[in-house]
Amino acid sequence: MNENLERVHRLQERLKKQQIDGCMITQNVDLYYFTGSMQAGYLFVPKEGNAVFFVRRSVIRAERESAVTVEPLGSFRSFGERLASLYRSVFDPAASHKVKLAAEFDVLPVQQLKRLETVLPQVEWVDGSMIVRELRMIKSPDEIGHIREAGRIINLAFEDALSKLHIGMTELELMSRIEWFVRQHGHIGLMRMRGYNQEVITGMVGAGEAAATPTYFDGPAGGQGLTAASPQSAGRRPIAANEPILIDIGCCIDGYVIDQTRTVVIGTLPDDLLEAYGKSEQIIRSVESRLLPGTISEQLYMHSLQLAHAAGLGDHFMGYGDDQVKFLGHGIGLEIDELPVLAKGFSYPLQRGMVIAIEPKFTFPGRGVIGIENSYAITDTGFEKLTVSREGLIQL
Amino acid sequence: MNENLERVHRLQERLKKQQIDGCMITQNVDLYYFTGSMQAGYLFVPKEGNAVFFVRRSVIRAERESAVTVEPLGSFRSFGERLASLYRSVFDPAASHKVKLAAEFDVLPVQQLKRLETVLPQVEWVDGSMIVRELRMIKSPDEIGHIREAGRIINLAFEDALSKLHIGMTELELMSRIEWFVRQHGHIGLMRMRGYNQEVITGMVGAGEAAATPTYFDGPAGGQGLTAASPQSAGRRPIAANEPILIDIGCCIDGYVIDQTRTVVIGTLPDDLLEAYGKSEQIIRSVESRLLPGTISEQLYMHSLQLAHAAGLGDHFMGYGDDQVKFLGHGIGLEIDELPVLAKGFSYPLQRGMVIAIEPKFTFPGRGVIGIENSYAITDTGFEKLTVSREGLIQL
Repeated sequence: MNENLERVHRLQERLKKQQIDGCMITQNVDLYYFTGSMQAGYLFVPKEGNAVFFVRRSVIRAERESAVTVEPLGSFRSFGERLASLYRSVFDPAASHKVKLAAEFDVLPVQQLKRLETVLPQVEWVDGSMIVRELRMIKSPDEIGHIREAGRIINLAFEDALSKLHIGMTELELMSRIEWFVRQHGHIGLMRMRGYNQEVITGMVGAGEAAATPTYFDGPAGGQGLTAASPQSAGRRPIAANEPILIDIGCCIDGYVIDQTRTVVIGTLPDDLLEAYGKSEQIIRSVESRLLPGTISEQLYMHSLQLAHAAGLGDHFMGYGDDQVKFLGHGIGLEIDELPVLAKGFSYPLQRGMVIAIEPKFTFPGRGVIGIENSYAITDTGFEKLTVSREGLIQL
Repeated sequence: MNENLERVHRLQERLKKQQIDGCMITQNVDLYYFTGSMQAGYLFVPKEGNAVFFVRRSVIRAERESAVTVEPLGSFRSFGERLASLYRSVFDPAASHKVKLAAEFDVLPVQQLKRLETVLPQVEWVDGSMIVRELRMIKSPDEIGHIREAGRIINLAFEDALSKLHIGMTELELMSRIEWFVRQHGHIGLMRMRGYNQEVITGMVGAGEAAATPTYFDGPAGGQGLTAASPQSAGRRPIAANEPILIDIGCCIDGYVIDQTRTVVIGTLPDDLLEAYGKSEQIIRSVESRLLPGTISEQLYMHSLQLAHAAGLGDHFMGYGDDQVKFLGHGIGLEIDELPVLAKGFSYPLQRGMVIAIEPKFTFPGRGVIGIENSYAITDTGFEKLTVSREGLIQL
């Protein structure tokens, strides 16, 4: 069976289990996941029977790409009646209760839901985002293949960047070079994020205290950025000798992202930062030893937190003070902020097919951020490391 | 008065006029517009009195950037009670009716609204997106200055691209070069779009039939893209002689975008495409003569449509067949899809301070897209052209 159709089938199993009559998928990434096409429209998945992708634009292109049956959306005003006549068992006019449909409430704008409510007044809408995110959490070998390829490309970009890095080069110059390199190799130009207001292009280059500048971005290192209108990632600060250069980068190949971090220095670092860097590698090794089917995702975070505290670095772990983030890692796939999150409150047992970026980092205000990040696919016996860049503090 | 605070004041005037008690701003771009900071949080604007930016992260950075008073958000669970005690006149417990608050329903995810509903059960939420978008439609001299600067930079990038363009170069290679160039000059890495599911990095390079490939993107030329997971913009197609090369690019400088298109050919074009290109310039000249305060935005679209039909090119105008888009241009500013839209149903009289990208284009399936696009600021007597690149079909 085609992989997209298998995913639709798994979605249907979940709908049945949760007694939901159907699901309306609208977000571009989810549409791509379930149909194989990212054209604009509405994918309707009844809990039983055939799904249909109602396409607004471009129908021709969707027909070429989609594994799910495509129909032109036509007039949105009559969409409700059309659905009701196509799916009589779902929209039974004789039924006494409302039809229960799920939608991706985590990304669907209120205005879009209200438009759907207008044409489908008989529907009670419920939040289907966790269903979709949990399905997407387990990757197929094909999906892992794309992430592996992204890992190969980001390593080439990283080595190229190292060969160009020199004192006085700005963060932005190095970042531009990395972006140019991955773009040439098929990076789609940004890494998609699901979180409201979150943006990431290709990651960040952050040198010295600039990397430790706190910001809104949901990550341990924010970066200074170019302007208050883009307050994260690389800035115009020249890179100096003997300061940590955090290179936290990724790319998106065929829709799938990779995420990795390495710490680089031109010269050497003060002893305490060297020690902290060593600690970040110790943490990742210790976490790796627990990367097995069955381990509970939040336990990995709690474990890393214990190690950081035991090393006397608790205040510096994953950001500093009020600007700390409360996670150790996150799922990656079509988006950079997928499940499972390695954080309190996420009690997913690890499972074959999960792909997780793990990023123990330490922030030293006024001085910089150091740490390491690898992406891993969980296997039956442990993990495959999808990040292939050399490890250790990289001294130039 | 500080420009951000003036904007908050204008928002309050609109709230009073529409009898709305206050507004909760949450989207990153709107937060930046009203406060000067893009940190994460909630900006509460009562219809009278002081606005407060309740910041989740980073408070330190928001305090440095925001013109509006910053307070730490603290526990979201007690946010409702806190607001009620800070704004007693808005949240009057003795009032018999609900408190009416506006939010940006066009971008606010359903889940976020539901969270707000939980902590503010006494509120009736209404859609404030048109209020915000209409305020943002009129730019200050300072905002126009940023767009002018973006126009200067994109012209440098365009001339650089022309100097590198050669037969056999792929669309992606040329696009990567343009992106590298603008990034070095301060492009934040993407151009923000407000529309659900819409993405644009730096625009597109589309050569020959690849440019005419229809796609979901709300523009007259889609492009082939790299994969079904990013079905727009540049692809891996090598550029050939004697075919139209559509270079529709922009950048985002200090938060503000510019948008321009030029048509280039290595060699020459067939007569009918040459003629169509000439027609696109005739249309833009004719539209320019109507770019004056008072002209109704939709009339510019209707006028261009008439000209295209009179030239026998109606079927090719702004896309082809079912994949045509129904507009001639769009406002630009912090986002690429701002008001006014030059389309049916948008009856804004042009006004000083509007900035509009106007893009008459013709699509020839299997052959390519030709056309021109300039961005204009409306002045008291007409317009200032913010696009400074040379016009005419560019033959190399």
